[in-house]
Amino acid sequence: MQLYSYFRSSAAYRVRIALNLKRLDYDIVPVHLLKSGGEQFAPAYRQLNADALIPTLLDEAAGALTQSLAIIEYLEETYPAPALLPVHAIDRAYVRSIALAIACDIHPLNNLRVMRYLKNSLHVDDAARDDWYRHWCQVGLEGLEARLSRDARVGKFCYGDTPTLADCCLAPQFFNAKRLNCDLSVLPTVQRINDACLALDAFASAAPDRQPDAE
Amino acid sequence: MQLYSYFRSSAAYRVRIALNLKRLDYDIVPVHLLKSGGEQFAPAYRQLNADALIPTLLDEAAGALTQSLAIIEYLEETYPAPALLPVHAIDRAYVRSIALAIACDIHPLNNLRVMRYLKNSLHVDDAARDDWYRHWCQVGLEGLEARLSRDARVGKFCYGDTPTLADCCLAPQFFNAKRLNCDLSVLPTVQRINDACLALDAFASAAPDRQPDAE
Repeated sequence: MQLYSYFRSSAAYRVRIALNLKRLDYDIVPVHLLKSGGEQFAPAYRQLNADALIPTLLDEAAGALTQSLAIIEYLEETYPAPALLPVHAIDRAYVRSIALAIACDIHPLNNLRVMRYLKNSLHVDDAARDDWYRHWCQVGLEGLEARLSRDARVGKFCYGDTPTLADCCLAPQFFNAKRLNCDLSVLPTVQRINDACLALDAFASAAPDRQPDAE
Repeated sequence: MQLYSYFRSSAAYRVRIALNLKRLDYDIVPVHLLKSGGEQFAPAYRQLNADALIPTLLDEAAGALTQSLAIIEYLEETYPAPALLPVHAIDRAYVRSIALAIACDIHPLNNLRVMRYLKNSLHVDDAARDDWYRHWCQVGLEGLEARLSRDARVGKFCYGDTPTLADCCLAPQFFNAKRLNCDLSVLPTVQRINDACLALDAFASAAPDRQPDAE
């Protein structure tokens, strides 16, 4: 398998974690989002990913798969062990809702193309852009903290004591929150789970600074 | 089942379609996003939905379920017929990737709280806000058009001739695209599929103007 990835892409980071947790072999194909006007816009890449977004997983059997959560669900169905989703529908909904709260309601507001639009089309200055980033990240992670702090299913990880799809999303988002100086003091549960994640090699070796294209 | 919904919420609209397609009985509990400073921020609602977002499905067995796609996956696992996902993992990934492209990369940029932030915190004027909305909607739907126009799995709907999770997301997004005067002429496949959707009562009766809280 080949993962079209960018070291700092939060969505690619999620898939790297899932591939590592499932002990699957894969090669990283770096797609530099900034160089040469953005390598994701190259016609050859758009054949694989019409949205010109990262990541894409190129799988011998499945062809080009896009959207990080769809890719992870595919891996879960194709390589069930170790499981990244619980057994029961109610618990699966809980885990998916955490993953989606991050993937839909935090990350898309903070990704590179949005930051660029704010700068280039709306002429928003650096400080106001940082405020925007922090705002959505903070609001979203505080919502997650509220859920995690009161749900009996939380263990060492978001669901029990082994990592799930939810944790594959939590760690990359926490990495961004730290980088943009969000107030982490109000996120004790999120932070504790992030620490548990990073103690696992599957998460640690998926981190941006451990990627072949890291700068 | 009770669906906490707002007539114009695109995410709630997806779940209304899925509930209708599966012929499940549910009551709509309207949550007005604008009245009284936003009913979604009421403490009682935040107990159900820590993110103060719409929708929430309150189910006798499962309790409060959040995030539209997690809710629909739950319905799919609990009430499998009619199926909203294909049988094979590769095709499930395809359907999910369309749903996620809309739910992650189009809709979150255009929802009410974001439009408000642009206005109130960044002082972006009406015309520039409309441009922002149209931009993300247009870019996202053109990516979808590119995929749909070249994928052999496309039939009357995004996958074959019966509606799936992908169509549950496509129709509400197309509704928004129309409302904001996106250029629909470059979206012939998306438009054709939307027409096929709206010809079904499950979609038509889920539309914003057919809701009890419609204005």
